[in-house]
Amino acid sequence: MSQEIISQYTVRVFYEDVDLGGIVYHSKYLNYCERARSDIFFSKGRSPVEGEYHFVVKHIDADFIASGRFEELLIVETRMVETKRASFLLLQSVYEKENRTKLFEMTIQLVCMKGKRVATIPADMLELFS
Amino acid sequence: MSQEIISQYTVRVFYEDVDLGGIVYHSKYLNYCERARSDIFFSKGRSPVEGEYHFVVKHIDADFIASGRFEELLIVETRMVETKRASFLLLQSVYEKENRTKLFEMTIQLVCMKGKRVATIPADMLELFS
Amino acid sequence: MSQEIISQYTVRVFYEDVDLGGIVYHSKYLNYCERARSDIFFSKGRSPVEGEYHFVVKHIDADFIASGRFEELLIVETRMVETKRASFLLLQSVYEKENRTKLFEMTIQLVCMKGKRVATIPADMLELFS
Amino acid sequence: MSQEIISQYTVRVFYEDVDLGGIVYHSKYLNYCERARSDIFFSKGRSPVEGEYHFVVKHIDADFIASGRFEELLIVETRMVETKRASFLLLQSVYEKENRTKLFEMTIQLVCMKGKRVATIPADMLELFS
Repeated sequence: MSQEIISQYTVRVFYEDVDLGGIVYHSKYLNYCERARSDIFFSKGRSPVEGEYHFVVKHIDADFIASGRFEELLIVETRMVETKRASFLLLQSVYEKENRTKLFEMTIQLVCMKGKRVATIPADMLELFS
Repeated sequence: MSQEIISQYTVRVFYEDVDLGGIVYHSKYLNYCERARSDIFFSKGRSPVEGEYHFVVKHIDADFIASGRFEELLIVETRMVETKRASFLLLQSVYEKENRTKLFEMTIQLVCMKGKRVATIPADMLELFS
Repeated sequence: MSQEIISQYTVRVFYEDVDLGGIVYHSKYLNYCERARSDIFFSKGRSPVEGEYHFVVKHIDADFIASGRFEELLIVETRMVETKRASFLLLQSVYEKENRTKLFEMTIQLVCMKGKRVATIPADMLELFS
Repeated sequence: MSQEIISQYTVRVFYEDVDLGGIVYHSKYLNYCERARSDIFFSKGRSPVEGEYHFVVKHIDADFIASGRFEELLIVETRMVETKRASFLLLQSVYEKENRTKLFEMTIQLVCMKGKRVATIPADMLELFS
């Protein structure tokens, strides 16, 4: 993995995140990754919804490697894989913070929309991901 | 309890609803009750959001009586307690379906909004709750 | 797609499922598909957690094709793609019910566990998926 | 309100928290408050589940005062109202961080359990709330 890390985002596993086995419910990793992406905007005083611009998920390819557990602190690392005119591909990995066990990893393709149409990603939005 | 039952709505307890004790996460009962209220509209071909009209939660007084568990079928029973010009008070009770154990009960006050203003409840919307 | 449909499961899109655009939050499709899988067990009086046996998600490859919206009824169709000794691969597709628009489709690999170990899928559990 | 503040906990409002009106879905305030309570344990290297001890929600009385919105930072303030042998009563208030608008306030009664029985709250757990 040679792409540079764009962001490292910490999440705590709470009661609402785990199932009866005490492990993180599988779809919650997607939520954690979405919070990490939104936080890239928030942490720079920006928003993932600006004017009519926003991003929609087009494709996800995800490996569930090990189980996160109640109480753990997790780290979401986000890397840029590829940029196109109207879309980009990120690699997002979730680790248990203390011992750096990798729990989850996905590539996610996001498409830029202006209202209901696919649109060229504004340069100043794209900049946040580099 | 002398109020008449407006609706009986069935929900299944899935993985996403329970915590590490295998019991329903407490705030999920509010979700179940909201689904039951929305279903009162849906089941009559109506919507809880019509024109600029919609309802917001103003107050909840809730007793957590017993624990719902993974796999169980629950029944949400909704009763009208009191109607005012712009708001109404419901009693919503959640039972385990098979043995009718009461798990949860709340009174909930809902206020009718038109856009951003409190508004008189349209007669044909109020009718759905009687 | 020549695999036979194992199950068709209906879900309603409620308030809790949509985001500020009024469209289904992306990870909710995984929840809908999990409910459909669990329902395959429930609808036959069985459970996805029997003795120490249960299933964990190993891999998901998902296309987000169109947006589900508040109030819509969706159908989750589940097909078996491939069975191995300890795992199987399903194809799950989510359609808007009325006009059969395909919204979401994923392949999902599930691994059978007995306690903390990978285990051969019990014949009577596998049977539910055929 | 003369009780002292036990904790101040910050939460961000993400996509997954809001509904089609762009405002926080009502039951999410209960989730935010639960995270704040759990964090009281976590922030001192402790856990809300220790040995067989844990806490269950018994009663909630909640006012929904104003609407939290996507992107906002919220503060959950927790105060102890009353302690009994096996239960305690907290006041939890949620504010929009920047302008200190109060959005939500509830009293919540929590009961201490040891396994499946009501139990005297261990002194060192109670201490965390004072």
